[in-house]
Amino acid sequence: MYAQEGAGQTGSLEGKTKPSKAKDVVVQDMIAQLADNILAGDRRALARAITLIESSRDDHRADATRLLEILAKENREAIRIGLSGTPGVGKSTFVESFGMMLIERGLRVAVLAVDPSSARSGGSILGDKTRMERLSRAPGAFIRPSPSQLELGGVARRTRDASALCEAAGYDVVIIETVGVGQSETIVAQMSDLFLLLLAPAGGDELQGVKRGIMEMADLIVVNKADGDLAATARRTMADYSGALGLMRKRDNDPEGFPKCMAISALHENGLTEVWDEMTTLLDWRREHGHWAKHRAEQRSHWFTQEVRLGLLAALTENQQIRDKMQKFSAETAKGDISPTKAAQEMLKLLS
Amino acid sequence: MYAQEGAGQTGSLEGKTKPSKAKDVVVQDMIAQLADNILAGDRRALARAITLIESSRDDHRADATRLLEILAKENREAIRIGLSGTPGVGKSTFVESFGMMLIERGLRVAVLAVDPSSARSGGSILGDKTRMERLSRAPGAFIRPSPSQLELGGVARRTRDASALCEAAGYDVVIIETVGVGQSETIVAQMSDLFLLLLAPAGGDELQGVKRGIMEMADLIVVNKADGDLAATARRTMADYSGALGLMRKRDNDPEGFPKCMAISALHENGLTEVWDEMTTLLDWRREHGHWAKHRAEQRSHWFTQEVRLGLLAALTENQQIRDKMQKFSAETAKGDISPTKAAQEMLKLLS
Repeated sequence: MYAQEGAGQTGSLEGKTKPSKAKDVVVQDMIAQLADNILAGDRRALARAITLIESSRDDHRADATRLLEILAKENREAIRIGLSGTPGVGKSTFVESFGMMLIERGLRVAVLAVDPSSARSGGSILGDKTRMERLSRAPGAFIRPSPSQLELGGVARRTRDASALCEAAGYDVVIIETVGVGQSETIVAQMSDLFLLLLAPAGGDELQGVKRGIMEMADLIVVNKADGDLAATARRTMADYSGALGLMRKRDNDPEGFPKCMAISALHENGLTEVWDEMTTLLDWRREHGHWAKHRAEQRSHWFTQEVRLGLLAALTENQQIRDKMQKFSAETAKGDISPTKAAQEMLKLLS
Repeated sequence: MYAQEGAGQTGSLEGKTKPSKAKDVVVQDMIAQLADNILAGDRRALARAITLIESSRDDHRADATRLLEILAKENREAIRIGLSGTPGVGKSTFVESFGMMLIERGLRVAVLAVDPSSARSGGSILGDKTRMERLSRAPGAFIRPSPSQLELGGVARRTRDASALCEAAGYDVVIIETVGVGQSETIVAQMSDLFLLLLAPAGGDELQGVKRGIMEMADLIVVNKADGDLAATARRTMADYSGALGLMRKRDNDPEGFPKCMAISALHENGLTEVWDEMTTLLDWRREHGHWAKHRAEQRSHWFTQEVRLGLLAALTENQQIRDKMQKFSAETAKGDISPTKAAQEMLKLLS
């Protein structure tokens, strides 16, 4: 999609295929080969490419950018489903059952996880593959856990790029799941075509516990565990949320009846095809009415702004002199010799 | 505290008292007068000062900085209590009952609210004063709702500065409450001496619903509504969280037994003095062991870094030429003429 008609762009890429150094030719060939293999649907090539985009090494970053530029020309798009739910709602079971249902329909499914480390815990989603036994063995599926130790900005870029790689590799559906810590839900929503909030059955009082901002991002609210003892509670929870959704203002990019709330059992595989039907109804409507393309365009603009912001902030850590000065001011601020605001003003004067 | 011994600092302030323009002299006098009134404990002066620091006008920002520098010299410190809890846990009732208990002990209490607007809802904490009837009428109390329409960074700075103003105005306790949307809990914890997480009684399954990162920030976890039908559930919830806290790693800046979980009834005013006793035990221990001062020093450093970051990002919106260029790239990115990453690289080249 990107730069497919830009003459200058094509020119610069052609320029790069005639570099002066032999090593560069080899790297260029490797990237071109990797792109070919990804486009052919090779899962190992896809995994290697994601490892490449996760690297923070400068040469890897440059290679990753080039790889993504090559792949973007193919214009392949998947349905990107953002999925959020706190631990305990049955997220893994849902991804497993829902993913397998899609696989059985002949669709290829990729699963990515976003788990921004919290300020102190530094946790990452572990064992996802082992909790998705059938899906992880399915030839049409690709599961990639979240890398740990990335900043929130880094997680966002990595997941966005990984989604693009999965689309290039011919996956029809990319599920981007998050545990919903801090800003991660917003980040996932900002890279998805459709946002699904998974909930567990709960009493009426707890309805308020779901953050309003999250509810407003959701296209579908799915109450899981509508089975056994919890079936009745699940249906009540669904009714409660349906009522709450009814009170919220209608969004421009939705057909009548959306956002919608449904009750399912991922464990018993009940209601999964209905979820998929609602998804395709919603997305088909959005495609017809131009909202799909508009939404993706807005997301690209958004990520441009984010990258510029991250790039500006990177200046604070990349240059040794700036780092030293930051540390000096930081120490003085800690001692109370200067106020944080005053120190920041002085530092910004040096940077401008 | 800041700049009390810095000769250059004092010099520059003296220099400002002899400006060339008459208008500046008047403004300087007004700021000095405002500072005097705040230090005398005048609530209206405090309210006016908070309005000043909430302003984004350049001259107001400069006045606010000067005001804070004057007040900082007095070295007044309150106990800053961060308070988080989702809607429905009884946060307002707790602040009302707990605040009144402190007032009856002869302490002066300020209440600030942090409510970062979510991406879509743009809500703010409304009606806090009306839900805290007794406290809002108490002469020793000061309640200030959260301003709406501020970015998260702006909310942080505003609340931090407002806390400093309350300390200068002689308040003994500053309660900084948040509804816990997105990053707001982290922001509140980063400006508090003590962080309290308020919970409602809940079944064992929901224990997992509390984000681990939030639990790890908490010094006290208080289960509210331990009254009537919910009394038994509240005590079970307390036991569950006590168990969970016991499994977490001990922190350096805590005495034995902390973080601690307690069950209370804000409505029936049961357990509130116990909460205050635990708070003073913890903070006295931290003061004796040097953790209080160290913690405040770290917070000052942290805010310095944050202010520099915000200042750098402000460059993107303050300059018309830069804004225009950003818009141009943003539009091209939306159209798909250039990738977000490539556009960001070009933009950063222009900025450096």
